[in-house]
Amino acid sequence: MRIAIIGLGLIGGSIGLALKNWSKTEEGQTANVELVGFDAKGKQRSLAEKMNVCHRYVATPMDAVKDADLVIVATPVMAVRETFEDIKEHLKPGAIVTDTCSTKRQVMNWAKELLPTTVSFVGGHPMAGKTASLEQADATLFKDCTYCLMAAPGVPEEAIENVTRLVNIFGANAYFMDPAEHDSYTAAISHLPYLTSVGLVNLAGSSPGWREMSRLASTGFKDTTRLAGGNLAMHVDICRTNSDSIINWIDRYQQQLTQLRQLIEEAGLFDERGRPKPESLSDVAPLEQYLSQAVETRERWQASRKQPLQDERSGDVAMPTTKEIRSTYSRMLFGGLFTKRSPRSDDPKNPSGSNNTPGKS
Amino acid sequence: MRIAIIGLGLIGGSIGLALKNWSKTEEGQTANVELVGFDAKGKQRSLAEKMNVCHRYVATPMDAVKDADLVIVATPVMAVRETFEDIKEHLKPGAIVTDTCSTKRQVMNWAKELLPTTVSFVGGHPMAGKTASLEQADATLFKDCTYCLMAAPGVPEEAIENVTRLVNIFGANAYFMDPAEHDSYTAAISHLPYLTSVGLVNLAGSSPGWREMSRLASTGFKDTTRLAGGNLAMHVDICRTNSDSIINWIDRYQQQLTQLRQLIEEAGLFDERGRPKPESLSDVAPLEQYLSQAVETRERWQASRKQPLQDERSGDVAMPTTKEIRSTYSRMLFGGLFTKRSPRSDDPKNPSGSNNTPGKS
Repeated sequence: MRIAIIGLGLIGGSIGLALKNWSKTEEGQTANVELVGFDAKGKQRSLAEKMNVCHRYVATPMDAVKDADLVIVATPVMAVRETFEDIKEHLKPGAIVTDTCSTKRQVMNWAKELLPTTVSFVGGHPMAGKTASLEQADATLFKDCTYCLMAAPGVPEEAIENVTRLVNIFGANAYFMDPAEHDSYTAAISHLPYLTSVGLVNLAGSSPGWREMSRLASTGFKDTTRLAGGNLAMHVDICRTNSDSIINWIDRYQQQLTQLRQLIEEAGLFDERGRPKPESLSDVAPLEQYLSQAVETRERWQASRKQPLQDERSGDVAMPTTKEIRSTYSRMLFGGLFTKRSPRSDDPKNPSGSNNTPGKS
Repeated sequence: MRIAIIGLGLIGGSIGLALKNWSKTEEGQTANVELVGFDAKGKQRSLAEKMNVCHRYVATPMDAVKDADLVIVATPVMAVRETFEDIKEHLKPGAIVTDTCSTKRQVMNWAKELLPTTVSFVGGHPMAGKTASLEQADATLFKDCTYCLMAAPGVPEEAIENVTRLVNIFGANAYFMDPAEHDSYTAAISHLPYLTSVGLVNLAGSSPGWREMSRLASTGFKDTTRLAGGNLAMHVDICRTNSDSIINWIDRYQQQLTQLRQLIEEAGLFDERGRPKPESLSDVAPLEQYLSQAVETRERWQASRKQPLQDERSGDVAMPTTKEIRSTYSRMLFGGLFTKRSPRSDDPKNPSGSNNTPGKS
């Protein structure tokens, strides 16, 4: 089967490497995988070629999707619309299209608006954060991460199953969500943290004392502002395609800071004009309570990350649970619809179809 | 010479371990170091004893400072006043007192108010961040970090030189500052980042969607909120003793967020009620400019951290530069005043005074 990867950055590159590894397994050999890569930047394609993330590289998205059974769009969000426009008339009927973008409402809308009804679209978003580019691509980037999936009503179950299997090949945990819910939640736990980080850097960096401050800034500043150093194009696109959710969370965040300011004022040993205030006049308990709440929430979160994911899902889109899909898949090879064309051999050392896998490295 | 460490947390413990290592060097053996440890919590003292961070442990701060040539106060800020009250009548004339607290104006005021004129106080603050406790104490914690120092006018140059030498023993870079400047700058690059981190956790954690969000939250959320999981008592004390500076920076930070909100609204593809807006109506350049400014500032900062510190200082307190001090010190042993009592032997393998170093481990 042919898999097209459009966009060869950190995510597209890591997907390529993961699928390369998988293509060497028994299951992958049976599926007879060919990975075709495209990136709008020729330089990026050359780097991908040097890193050997695909079997073959092409110069247009149309060439990439030609005869592809699965198309993975891993571009910045704002490039997705144009990509869909480019590929829509070149997609093989029955193909599955998925993406990896950080915001999902627009992508789902564009898919509905632009992709032909002969293909199935299942939106995806791996929650694997790393401030890095293709050079740091890694076959295990998605291992154990939550991988959000969503499909519009009416998408064939088989397509959903195939994308779920793909996610499992990456070592990630499929998690079905509603696109609006996804965009609101990721605004809170990903886009807002990015913006708070940017705000900290720009506030300090534009201060007259920055030269001296920058000397005092240590690992705390470094970690808290790591996201601010991330991929600019990606973040601009996120802000544009999720502006309403993000603004909503900025407003709520500002309320938290206003509350915190009030608590510090009450607990402080200085009044607002910087004059000392007797300790007896300061009320420290509410501040302590607020700060300790964060410690507890974070500890519970960290502990829960070490737990295996339970099978459950949210949203109002009818989809099989991960558990159902897994149990279906224990009896199937990846891409039931593809494997029909390359039946499994009983001899794992010489699976059918392995001889005509092109461009294997 | 006897060195008292009051407060055996991560910082006090790491200081103990660093000085332990130093005491085994030729210079340290000549100085004939005895480390005496105290912590208000018996359990903490026992742990310190198990970790072998001092030579000897005592049950009161008064016992700790008895005959001590150097007293290092490494308690939370709000415990410093009481510590000074406890020790003030027990300090050896000529002793040097220093601290390691995160805020400095109050500590400098308390020192002036409470410590006898027979001792010299030089305030200190190592900019070595780590969310950890005594268990993670490490002799190299301060290596290459900026170590803020400050002394009131009139403090003998020799005391400043001795504390600078101490800082160099830790492998850190002494950096002289004015206390008010210190408190304002650290509010921007350390206390505010802590609070933005707390705000993110409490906002997400108090949201009805937290159960699902917490599943999507990944390394970005983890790093941006790391500080929120830090030592509660230390942070409460920081907020109290630096309330006015912190409030000032929260206000400025809110202005940054308001600006950012505006830029996102302009660049966004949704209006504030979540209705799609044509791409042509969105103005993305100012947002891009704001976000890219953060990338550049952060990159320059990261690059400058790899450069060696230049010798310079700020503030209006007359003090020797690090360079001056270092050149003085190249001709002296640690604690000129102490070493007079334990003259250096010409035989490095048998330095004078090494025989009566008590409690060496």
